[in-house]
Order: sequence, then C-alpha cells, then structure tokens
Amino acid sequence: MYVYICALLFSSLLLATSAQSKFEYEIKEFQVPLDHFSFLSNASFSIRYLYNESYADKSNPKSIFFYTGNEGDIEWFAKNSGFVWELAEKERAIVVFAEHRYYGKSLPFGSDTFNASKPEHLAYFTVEQTLEDYAMLITFLRNGRQLPVVAFGGSYGGMLAAWFRIKYPHIVVGALAASAPILQFEGLTPCDIFNEITTSVFNTAYNANCSANIGKSWHAFETMAATDAGKKQLGDKFHLCEPIKNGDDLNQFMDYLEDVYANLAMSNYPYNTNFLAPLPANPVRQFCLYLKDLHADEADLVSSMASALAVYTNYSGSDPCVDYKNSNASSATVDSSGWEIQSCNQMVMPFCANSSNTMYRTSTWDLKKVSDKCYKKFQLTPKPFDIVLRYGGRDLVAASNIIFSNGLLDPWSGGGVLMSPNDRIHIIILPEGAHHLDLRQSNPMDPASVVDARQKEAAIIGQWISEFYRYL
Amino acid sequence: MYVYICALLFSSLLLATSAQSKFEYEIKEFQVPLDHFSFLSNASFSIRYLYNESYADKSNPKSIFFYTGNEGDIEWFAKNSGFVWELAEKERAIVVFAEHRYYGKSLPFGSDTFNASKPEHLAYFTVEQTLEDYAMLITFLRNGRQLPVVAFGGSYGGMLAAWFRIKYPHIVVGALAASAPILQFEGLTPCDIFNEITTSVFNTAYNANCSANIGKSWHAFETMAATDAGKKQLGDKFHLCEPIKNGDDLNQFMDYLEDVYANLAMSNYPYNTNFLAPLPANPVRQFCLYLKDLHADEADLVSSMASALAVYTNYSGSDPCVDYKNSNASSATVDSSGWEIQSCNQMVMPFCANSSNTMYRTSTWDLKKVSDKCYKKFQLTPKPFDIVLRYGGRDLVAASNIIFSNGLLDPWSGGGVLMSPNDRIHIIILPEGAHHLDLRQSNPMDPASVVDARQKEAAIIGQWISEFYRYL
Repeated sequence: MYVYICALLFSSLLLATSAQSKFEYEIKEFQVPLDHFSFLSNASFSIRYLYNESYADKSNPKSIFFYTGNEGDIEWFAKNSGFVWELAEKERAIVVFAEHRYYGKSLPFGSDTFNASKPEHLAYFTVEQTLEDYAMLITFLRNGRQLPVVAFGGSYGGMLAAWFRIKYPHIVVGALAASAPILQFEGLTPCDIFNEITTSVFNTAYNANCSANIGKSWHAFETMAATDAGKKQLGDKFHLCEPIKNGDDLNQFMDYLEDVYANLAMSNYPYNTNFLAPLPANPVRQFCLYLKDLHADEADLVSSMASALAVYTNYSGSDPCVDYKNSNASSATVDSSGWEIQSCNQMVMPFCANSSNTMYRTSTWDLKKVSDKCYKKFQLTPKPFDIVLRYGGRDLVAASNIIFSNGLLDPWSGGGVLMSPNDRIHIIILPEGAHHLDLRQSNPMDPASVVDARQKEAAIIGQWISEFYRYL
Repeated sequence: MYVYICALLFSSLLLATSAQSKFEYEIKEFQVPLDHFSFLSNASFSIRYLYNESYADKSNPKSIFFYTGNEGDIEWFAKNSGFVWELAEKERAIVVFAEHRYYGKSLPFGSDTFNASKPEHLAYFTVEQTLEDYAMLITFLRNGRQLPVVAFGGSYGGMLAAWFRIKYPHIVVGALAASAPILQFEGLTPCDIFNEITTSVFNTAYNANCSANIGKSWHAFETMAATDAGKKQLGDKFHLCEPIKNGDDLNQFMDYLEDVYANLAMSNYPYNTNFLAPLPANPVRQFCLYLKDLHADEADLVSSMASALAVYTNYSGSDPCVDYKNSNASSATVDSSGWEIQSCNQMVMPFCANSSNTMYRTSTWDLKKVSDKCYKKFQLTPKPFDIVLRYGGRDLVAASNIIFSNGLLDPWSGGGVLMSPNDRIHIIILPEGAHHLDLRQSNPMDPASVVDARQKEAAIIGQWISEFYRYL
C-alpha cells in the first residue's frame, strides 16, 4: 500500500472541470540535457510545455506564470489548475505549464524509457534534474528580458514549486505551493499522520460511526473470507471484477479500500467532480451516510460497506465491476508507475498506521523492505535523505516568497508546512479544503475559506510582481 | 594565457606562514557518492578533511568552522588561512578544512583519475558535486546536533563558500567569502577588468613609469627576439632555463610574464611571504623600483625588466634559472591542471586585455577557441552558463548571511561582489588588501584596513552564531 498511496498524490488533480474550453494553449518542446550535473555525455531530449500568451501584452509582457509540472501528463494539470489561468488573466501574465521529465510525452528515451532491461534509463529521473529543466526553460522564455516569473504547483508540483523558489530565487520571484507535503519525509513527520487525518475526515463527515465501522470492517472481511462461500459472498457484494481466491487477494482488496479512503478524503470537494470515477459533492459524507449506524453484525457491516463503496466505484451507475487489482490504471494520464519509480529513488515518504487510533489496519514503515522491493523492481536503491539534505527539511528560515496553502480536510496537510519560519513565508490554511482545492478554478460551491485563500494568494503574488519592478 | 591565469587564483594561498605549528589537525576521510545527482551507479570514494576540536568543548561544541576547500591540497589552505584558526579559538569552534574532490588526495579514481584515455573519469568534477560532498560531510559531523556551521573560503574557495550558503542555508548559517570573484563570468563583468586592475596596481605602486615600461616591453622583446643574437641576449639577461628559439617560445615567455604580474599583484602583501618563489614585502613596489625611469631605449628597458623580474624569480638568490615554460609546476601542491579542467567545464571565466588602457598585450576572449582546446585536451565541452543559471549571477537579492570581502589591490576584486543587494549581505572593502589578505593570520605589518575587516568579520560571524541559538 505504501508505494501506491504516493501515487494518490496526483489523483485529485485529474478532476475534470466544467469549462475546459478556457484552457487553451500551444504545445511546444524544449531541449534539455539528459544529465545537468555531470559531463559524462552531451545527450539531450525534449520536454513538452504548454504556452498561452493571450492574456499578456505580447510586446511587453508583465510576468510569466509557470506551473512546475508533476507526475503525469501536463495537459491534465493545466486543465485542473483553473486558479492559475484566472489569476493570469487578471495579472496579464504569460501562462506556461511545463511537463515533468519522464511523464506524459517528455520521455528521455522515448518508448524505451521504462524498458525494464535498461534500468540505467531511469538514472536521471530526479527532482534536481527536473528543476534544472525548468530553470533552463524559464531562462529561454525570458530571453534576456527582466520579467518576473511566479511558480505554481499543487501536491508534488507544489513541492517542486517551493523547492524551485528555495534553490533558484533568481529565477522565480515566488511560489504558490498548494498542498505540498514537503515535510512528508523520514524524521520530519510521524509516519501515521496521513492515516490519522483521513480517519478524522471520515469521523466527522457525518458521524463517528463511519470510521468506527471501517475500523471494524477489516476483521469482518477476514472472517467472511475464511470460507470459500464467504469469499464468493465478498466478491458478489462488492461486484469485484476478479474473485477473492486467497489471502493475497484479500489483502489486495483491503489495500485497495485503504487507497479509496485516501482518495475520497483528498477529493472531498464541495461539488461534483470526475475523479478516477465520477464523484458526488462531499463524497466522504455521501460514503458515510451508508455507515451512519454502528453495525454489531459483521455480515450487515460488510453489506453496508459495499453500498458505501459504490459511492466511489459506481456513482455514475455505469461501472460493471470493481477492479481492485488494477486501481491505479484507470486513466491513461495517471502515471502511477512513474511515481512508483520516484518513490524508489528520492521521494521516499514513510507511511504507517496504528489501528488503535485510526480506522486503518496497523502497519509499520519498513525502509529495508521498501528498498528491497525497489531494487528488485527497478534496480534502484532509495536515497531517503536526499530531499532533506538538499531542501532543508523543517529548516526554512532562509527561504522567502513561498505560499504554503493546506486544506485541513486533506490527508497530505500532515506533511505540509503549517507554521511560518519568517515573515516572507506565507501560510494559508483552508479549514474546509481538501487537496489543493484553492488551485482549482472558481466554483459557486466553493466554501468561504477557499475564496478568501485565493484572494490572499492573488494579493501576495501581485505584491511579488510589484516588488520585482520596484527594485529593478 | 587565459586558461593559466585561472590557475593563479589559488597561488597566493600557498604563502608559507611563520608559525605553522599552530595549524594542527587530524587528517580524516569521508566517503561520498561519486555522482550525487543520478542513480546510474552506487560508486563512491573518499575525500579528505582536516579536523581540530582542541578549541571546542568536546562534549558541547558551540559551532563548526568549515573551510570549503578549493583547487589544491587542503593542507595548504589550512596553513594559509590563519584567520579561521584565530577566530575558531575565540569562538571555541571545531575547525574543519574539507578537501575538494579531484584535488590533493581526494581523487575519485585514485592514480587513474586524470588518465587521458579515460576522460569519463572527469565527469563528476563540478561545483555542485563538491558542494554536495560538503553538505553530506557537515551533516555527518553535526551528527544530529543543533550546531551552527560557518563556511569559510578564499578565492575559488570563497566562491564555494558563498554558493554553499546560497544553496544550503539550512546547513551553514553564513559564509565568509574572501576575494571570491563570483561575478567573473560571461555577461556579468567586462573581460578586461582583471588586467585593468593589475595595471592600476603597477601604475601606483611606485610611479606610473612602471606600467608604462611594461607596456612598452612587449615590443622591445619582439624587436630583440627578431635576431638570433637578440634571442640569446634575452635568454642570458633573464636567466632563462630554456633558450628562446622561435616565436612560440617568445610568446610563452611573454605569457609567463603576464602571469607573473598577476601573481605579484595578488600577493602584494605588506610582509615577506613565500609564494611560488619567496617574495619581499610589497613586491610590486620592489619590482617597480627597477622600472622607475621611463626607458626610451629598448635594450635598456629589457635590462631593467630583467632586474625587476628577479624580485619575483630570485628574491632568495638561490634560483638557478627562470623556468618560463613550466611556471605552474613549481609546487607539488599547486594543482593548475585540476583548475584547467574546471575552466573547461563550468569555471569558464572570460579574460581579455586592451593594450590601449592596460600594460598588457591586446587579446580577445574567444569561447569557441577555448572550447575547442578543452575538447581536444579533455574531451570536455564547456558550459559557460551553468554557474550563472544556478547561482544567480548578479541577482543575489534573496541571499543572506554572506560576507564578501575584497581587497582593492587584488585583480580578482573586479569580479567580486562590491555592492550589497540587501542588509543581510555584508560587503567589506580592503583598500590596502591584495588577494584575501583578511583570511591570512594576523601580522604586525597588517594595514589598518585588514585589522578592521577581521574585526568586522568576527563580529558578524559571532552574530550569526548567536542568532542561531536565539532562534533555536
């Protein structure tokens, strides 16, 4: 589960928007060195970027808004980061969304990039190489002009935006890092915080029986799956595409459920969205409505769980069965395999859970186990301390001009920056916000806190741009 | 000449001190990855570092003073950076001098490191890899303790110290960057400034006839070398180890003289020092005493030049001849070949001269020519914009806690930071200072400006340490 939960990081970005026509751009390419940091070869490849200068005065643009693309096809991020476009219109900025190397169509070795027999192809799939790509692209786009650039990003893209400002303050005047869990690393944050927050979301969405029922469900599934008849019953109740035949299947099913709960919490938005599957507004509450009564009987509990799960798996009513063995492959643009590689080199985020204070099964973080799996699968040995060594962990006192926004309904907020180390780092908390809700386009159902957050963000970003010109 | 002038960068650090016994340390090793920035291999090697904790309370040290080693054997830098030791004693700091990869005994591939048939061995000889070595070493030395670390460096070591603070502010609380020409790069500083300052030093050391005579000498040498008898005469007058047989030899001789002038200016200290050769106090003045009269006759001029040069080549009276073909190999610890490699990958510093306003021959900066030579010799293609892209060039507004000290008698001050972008960057100018005089140990002959500079530096560094503890 722990590898896959990282893949959830991007999932809420894939919510479809109601007015995609506003997101128009040219798709361009930019050549970057394969390896920015050695002189071993001069190999290069192209990353894609999306470009729109329709809001700007072309002969005299005022600024560039630069989205530091994260783990997936960049078009999805462009289409699901409406706030960048809305603010660009207001600030008359050029809009750029840059695609992260090894994702989308920005593949260093083309179709051979992920060839399992060529693990050396994965060697340059790092945060630092990616930030250098962006630094070079911005330098190219500025073309010698004195032009302030603001970095934007959500989730892992927000981490990149923050780190970009930390390491390249001469290239970006500031960064909006929305729901960026830059503290979700070894030694910085308790590994169980993600699951604790998810539990809390389920605990309060309708009533506390919801998380209590989930907590009890694991035993109920195990009891039921102890017999062949029970296994079949489970498969039938949950409309599973593949039957549960053994303990491995059962575990995979339960891992899948844990992923679903995290997904539901992250995308617990106040309006209908189209996620890995279509979701209603306030999906956790909808889910929990089916679990409002505390079930003493395990068979009853399993039945209610199945009904609840349909909120996630079949809200549209069109899904024939629950593909619990293949949950991360439901979208062509979702690149969970790319993220799995990153979680095996630098993005080693510890997760664990304790059944005594969460609705999850108890699990521990075992770096050795993770490391062995990574080596077996990708011939990669994780470097779990790379990120803290380079970006400073909790020591952000020298950093400036970063907005860290976090929604308290978002499990990733546990690894977010919630306290400012100085007056140049801005912390924005959205009590009613799920995963980077503020980065999405405006919606009439937006809670007051997100409307307010966007206003604050706009004001701060406007100030960074003004300051750039004042000190020019 | 332009490649070699870079090698001069470190030369004045090699001045011997009168009380070397105070510089005591253990020599230790620390294992670092060969390549910090890719996952291509897990290869590693050891860098050396010098360690002294005699000033500190071992059970509860107050700080670490960390010299970011530059282009040469680290023991030389330790022995020629007396200020670090003096201040460490005052601040009860642990003293660490870290050796730069590819120098001294910190060779990634041992004796095979510079094997010309294995140019791939040079691939990891970069600023970024070096800074990562230092970041890892400090993290190891801190061993989880909350312990402020101050970076120190002179010349290229000062550039590293400044960049280290810029990129790793969570690892060092500040940096003293003495005579650090971080602006000596393409597009930042006129390429002739180094030679203009050197000219000015020779112009004012005794009287203006000195630089005028030097300016006229090139023609005098050419006239004399036009005949075989003249070639012999030149060799005899200058006590050259190898005769001047052709135009190439003559050019090499004149290149050598240009290097000598830069060396003299850089090491124009107010007391006797032992440089590549022993030097008197105020060596430029001593040199210029032989050139106080403007010579109309070229033969006379050549004779006076020969006498003047002996100030540099034979002050001790023991040097049998002037080895103009091998001027950079006079010390086993001087690593001009290592610097030549760096000037062929990232440290591409443009130099040029105009005979109309300097004492130098006119020369242009030709990147293509440099690049071709670099490829031919090392199979390296220079990346002249790497440094500016990463460290920001003149845009230092987001940087903090760096002291840039520059002596106005130092030719490298032209590429130094002489204006502060904000109140957290400190500029210290030493009107009477040659190349990082402030970093050397105290001497009764020190001019008031260097005594004052060291006091200011000590106060600022003390404040950084106090602040660290105040905000802990």
